[in-house]
Amino acid sequence: MKGRFFAIGVGPGDPELLTLKAVRILKNADVIACPSKESGPGIAFNIAAQAVPEILDKRIIALEFPMTKKDLTQAHENAARQLINVLDSDKDIAFLTLGDPSIYSTFSYILGLIKRNGYEVEMISGVTSFTAVAAKLLISLSSKDESVMITSKEYTDVADTLVIMKAGSVLKELKAKISKTKKEMYLVENCGMEDEKIYRGIDSIPDEVGYFSIVIVTDRKEFNE
Amino acid sequence: MKGRFFAIGVGPGDPELLTLKAVRILKNADVIACPSKESGPGIAFNIAAQAVPEILDKRIIALEFPMTKKDLTQAHENAARQLINVLDSDKDIAFLTLGDPSIYSTFSYILGLIKRNGYEVEMISGVTSFTAVAAKLLISLSSKDESVMITSKEYTDVADTLVIMKAGSVLKELKAKISKTKKEMYLVENCGMEDEKIYRGIDSIPDEVGYFSIVIVTDRKEFNE
Repeated sequence: MKGRFFAIGVGPGDPELLTLKAVRILKNADVIACPSKESGPGIAFNIAAQAVPEILDKRIIALEFPMTKKDLTQAHENAARQLINVLDSDKDIAFLTLGDPSIYSTFSYILGLIKRNGYEVEMISGVTSFTAVAAKLLISLSSKDESVMITSKEYTDVADTLVIMKAGSVLKELKAKISKTKKEMYLVENCGMEDEKIYRGIDSIPDEVGYFSIVIVTDRKEFNE
Repeated sequence: MKGRFFAIGVGPGDPELLTLKAVRILKNADVIACPSKESGPGIAFNIAAQAVPEILDKRIIALEFPMTKKDLTQAHENAARQLINVLDSDKDIAFLTLGDPSIYSTFSYILGLIKRNGYEVEMISGVTSFTAVAAKLLISLSSKDESVMITSKEYTDVADTLVIMKAGSVLKELKAKISKTKKEMYLVENCGMEDEKIYRGIDSIPDEVGYFSIVIVTDRKEFNE
């Protein structure tokens, strides 16, 4: 009997947005794995630990992921090998990801490596950050036959509603492009965290914000009127 | 002190995918409102009741929403009036929606009416059905700089990954269009429910499936190899 590997979405920031399933698996897991931040467990771990303090007493594997592509592939392979060693000792691993594991998550390459080596893997869905942002703004992203496009940094006008993840690093350019449209622009920084900031309307949005910023571009604003 | 209105996403089907926040609010709510099915509480209520059986003992308002547009507007106004009467008697209402309340939810018009009348409203995010489908399939919807398009019924090739909600009614046409591309097609019917069915690859997908079917079109298949 080998250990099992669970990739768990812990939601966008508010510990209460963990699912019952995530809580159950975190309580039962032998080992917690998570991306690291300055050699310690990162933001996903901090969110999970607020909802399930028991994980503070478990073995924690904090994985470092460098930013350059070549180093990253090597880091993924090292991480997978490290995790497989744990699975071979009959331990279940809960790997924590911010938001939902299928949306811009760092774990996908690792999960592929582990699955191809014959281990049992399961993805546990979490609340994705952009629907949490819509909830904060009290807006709908889509109704009836409307479409939603989710992109990383890029602006496009092919959908009724556009969600731009990681908008912080290109915000000035985004504002210039969106100001030429008739759409409304919203931004939420650090959604669900203590330093959350909500901006409604392009004129209220500064040119510089933090990394965890999501922009929504839409012509729907009925809830705000 | 007026009652508060909570629009709660109960997730796609598995009662364990309710969030801790949804559970807390459901336990404390005075009244549960939900879309009805044949004059009884519908599928969102059944999911929530499995996670929080206490709601079976609360007052339940099952709202009927007809399919024609003219009747629907009238039904929304009637529903909002009924709910506002409850809020005026200092009762908190939990309104249940399948998946996440910002994605193709029926409640948005009602929430707008209630908010414009000056009542406190809050949206509680849930796991959206399409990320739960990705979890079942063990696939990633987006990584790095990839884009995701979510549509209702329509096929389009503007994004790296396409999610088609309510695919059941147009499945034969979708299959014909997708068969001309080099992308892989996946379908999950009744995700997270007892009669869930998972189809990988266009050749395995029948021409007719149920209403709660979601199609994913993507060229990413590394987890399945």
